[in-house]
Amino acid sequence: MPLRLDSRDADFAAAFTALVDARREADEDVSRDVAAILKRVRAEGDAALADYTSRFDRHDLEASGWAVTRAECRAALDGISSELRDALELAAARITAYHEKQKPQDSDGTDNAGVRLGARWRPVDAAGLYVPGGRAAYPSSLLMNVIPAKVAGVSRIAMVTPTPNGVINPLVLAAASIVGIEEIWRIGGAQAVAALAYGTDRIKPVDVVTGPGNAWVAEAKRQLYGVVGIDMVAGPSEIVVVADGKNDPDWIAADLLSQSEHDPTSQSILFTDDAVFADAVAAAVERRLPLLSTQAVATTSWAANGAIILVRDLEEAMPLVNRLAAEHLELAVEDPEILFEQVRHAGSVFLGRMTPEAVGDYVAGPNHVLPTGRRARFSSGLSVLDFMKRTSFLSLDQAAIDAIGPAAVALAEAEGLPAHAASVAVRLS
Amino acid sequence: MPLRLDSRDADFAAAFTALVDARREADEDVSRDVAAILKRVRAEGDAALADYTSRFDRHDLEASGWAVTRAECRAALDGISSELRDALELAAARITAYHEKQKPQDSDGTDNAGVRLGARWRPVDAAGLYVPGGRAAYPSSLLMNVIPAKVAGVSRIAMVTPTPNGVINPLVLAAASIVGIEEIWRIGGAQAVAALAYGTDRIKPVDVVTGPGNAWVAEAKRQLYGVVGIDMVAGPSEIVVVADGKNDPDWIAADLLSQSEHDPTSQSILFTDDAVFADAVAAAVERRLPLLSTQAVATTSWAANGAIILVRDLEEAMPLVNRLAAEHLELAVEDPEILFEQVRHAGSVFLGRMTPEAVGDYVAGPNHVLPTGRRARFSSGLSVLDFMKRTSFLSLDQAAIDAIGPAAVALAEAEGLPAHAASVAVRLS
Repeated sequence: MPLRLDSRDADFAAAFTALVDARREADEDVSRDVAAILKRVRAEGDAALADYTSRFDRHDLEASGWAVTRAECRAALDGISSELRDALELAAARITAYHEKQKPQDSDGTDNAGVRLGARWRPVDAAGLYVPGGRAAYPSSLLMNVIPAKVAGVSRIAMVTPTPNGVINPLVLAAASIVGIEEIWRIGGAQAVAALAYGTDRIKPVDVVTGPGNAWVAEAKRQLYGVVGIDMVAGPSEIVVVADGKNDPDWIAADLLSQSEHDPTSQSILFTDDAVFADAVAAAVERRLPLLSTQAVATTSWAANGAIILVRDLEEAMPLVNRLAAEHLELAVEDPEILFEQVRHAGSVFLGRMTPEAVGDYVAGPNHVLPTGRRARFSSGLSVLDFMKRTSFLSLDQAAIDAIGPAAVALAEAEGLPAHAASVAVRLS
Repeated sequence: MPLRLDSRDADFAAAFTALVDARREADEDVSRDVAAILKRVRAEGDAALADYTSRFDRHDLEASGWAVTRAECRAALDGISSELRDALELAAARITAYHEKQKPQDSDGTDNAGVRLGARWRPVDAAGLYVPGGRAAYPSSLLMNVIPAKVAGVSRIAMVTPTPNGVINPLVLAAASIVGIEEIWRIGGAQAVAALAYGTDRIKPVDVVTGPGNAWVAEAKRQLYGVVGIDMVAGPSEIVVVADGKNDPDWIAADLLSQSEHDPTSQSILFTDDAVFADAVAAAVERRLPLLSTQAVATTSWAANGAIILVRDLEEAMPLVNRLAAEHLELAVEDPEILFEQVRHAGSVFLGRMTPEAVGDYVAGPNHVLPTGRRARFSSGLSVLDFMKRTSFLSLDQAAIDAIGPAAVALAEAEGLPAHAASVAVRLS
């Protein structure tokens, strides 16, 4: 049974705080093991990769090939149904269109002191993309990671994906073919992230590593942050639904379960102002659960982390929603604008009764790589900006340095940095 | 003596690669000690802060006060010279004007499938700013960290600064008064970062922690990345100057020394196509060094990490400059545009003969918190965006979900996520 809270209850504040503070992220202490893997890949390169892949993935890279070829990707694309192919192509086109609008503007101008000031955005040279193997090998994640890098103008994209027992997910290869990835290495785990960051004889180093992964991959990214850029450290998926009593309870139940089925640590929370509706959603969840092939995961997640929270009115929910700062937020009401205006922290918001979160996972356009675990308080979903960087620039002439230089000299001297002061002072007229 | 290289030499490629790969960052292993401090502050809160401050800063928080008051800041401002006050105010005004232009645009529109798509930027609720104590307590760094947060619209800014032996830098307080910081705690080190991230009884937690610090502060930020947002892990300062023979060698020497004087690990590199000029700069550096109050540091840094690199022509330097991806890059030539076009990786670029890097440290406007250690390959200087986050949003009506929903259903089913598929399918007409 999921948690049931009522904002009218005397102990609500404490119970809600406990819900906000509950950590669902595993504290697996893999940091020492990961550090050892990174060190060995850095020192031994491809030999270490081959050994780890043989041990962890039971797969001989020398015998079956280090890389997936373009021909293999093309064959995978040819092998899927036209319905799936059309779906992948629609998704790729819509994701591309959305991310094109994220491209930042350069700036360049001269102010009234005669100082030319500006900023220029450029793509990174190379991006590395981690795509998990096995059950969590999602072609949609591949699209969501590759397309922002392509739109940013990154000229080299290197993908790594483990192929346990040599088996590759054909849908992932089909998606790779659609977006045109030229470089796919059959490696995974912390060792693959190390190879991307440090480079080996075979694999040239990249500048940014993105993509989801297990605890080892996440820890490798965390440890290599600074050697390369990374997207974020992702935790379990989550959804908050704010719904009035006029929704179909069965629809809202489906929305809640769409997160619960991801992982036993996923979280689905419903806020509603209608106690009868709350009961109807709870009942609909129970009816739907046995029908799912993901029943075991969804049942565990819903019971352990699910919550139904009754509020006096939906406006009362909004400060609570902001405290949760959820990855996904549905505002399932007739006119969601009033509530939306009050949203300060959320990864992505789904407005109205006809906008289920799952449509955003695949084909709507915005990125589905979003901050989890309350990190929407300070971070954003994956975007074109994660694959670009800004260089500021500055140009002064004699008049400009005469105008603002003396202040720089004064401050440099006050900070005890005489060479700073001198480099400006020598140019003053 | 700094390194001298000539691109015509047979071993140049190897020597230059060694220069690029040389690590100047200390590998101080403070991670275990920092982890222990974070854990204790999280568990014991203010009591741990008081104890660490007593031990590390020899300062009794209970006796002399936990916080610096606005009146103390105001008094410090009243106590500095009008020249310094004017300089700080000019700097604050120009930094504000530059950062105002960084404010991102929201987007909102409906595409031809009838899908409403957009993105909305909001500031974080609270930012924590670390300002070092003692010799490295720079009022300019305070301005460079606080102003982007203010421009972003952050409503609460909490500053921490250690006051060893109870001594506070009056210039830092004066700068705090100018930008109007209401909350200043007299704590430092890893314990201060922990207090900002986790919160204590006295200090409410923040969402983002920025600002420079020693190895302990940097490691605390690294370990708390994910609990809060952080700006970056900063390393030693560095400058690359590309200069033709028509510059005054004394000016270029001053520019090189403006980085050398920061720290023994700082790095200054000159590229020039004129061997006579190279010698003249080297001689000018030797003449200038004894005149500096920072002579000891600058001499060590210049000898250990400085380099003068002779190239056939300045265009040849540009791919080398991109490999270094320096924090600061001066293009000291008559028409810098041709070279500037070839810059792919640099934190900030200073164009022409009259634009010394130091003017950018103080009063020009762009941020002086910039990526070091080749991280300009993938990261940017501190900006308004570091204090904001983007929420994507989406709204569909019946026609829109009928248009794109079936593709989402197909992909969800192919990925083995039936509840995802159902949440879309139930809404299709």
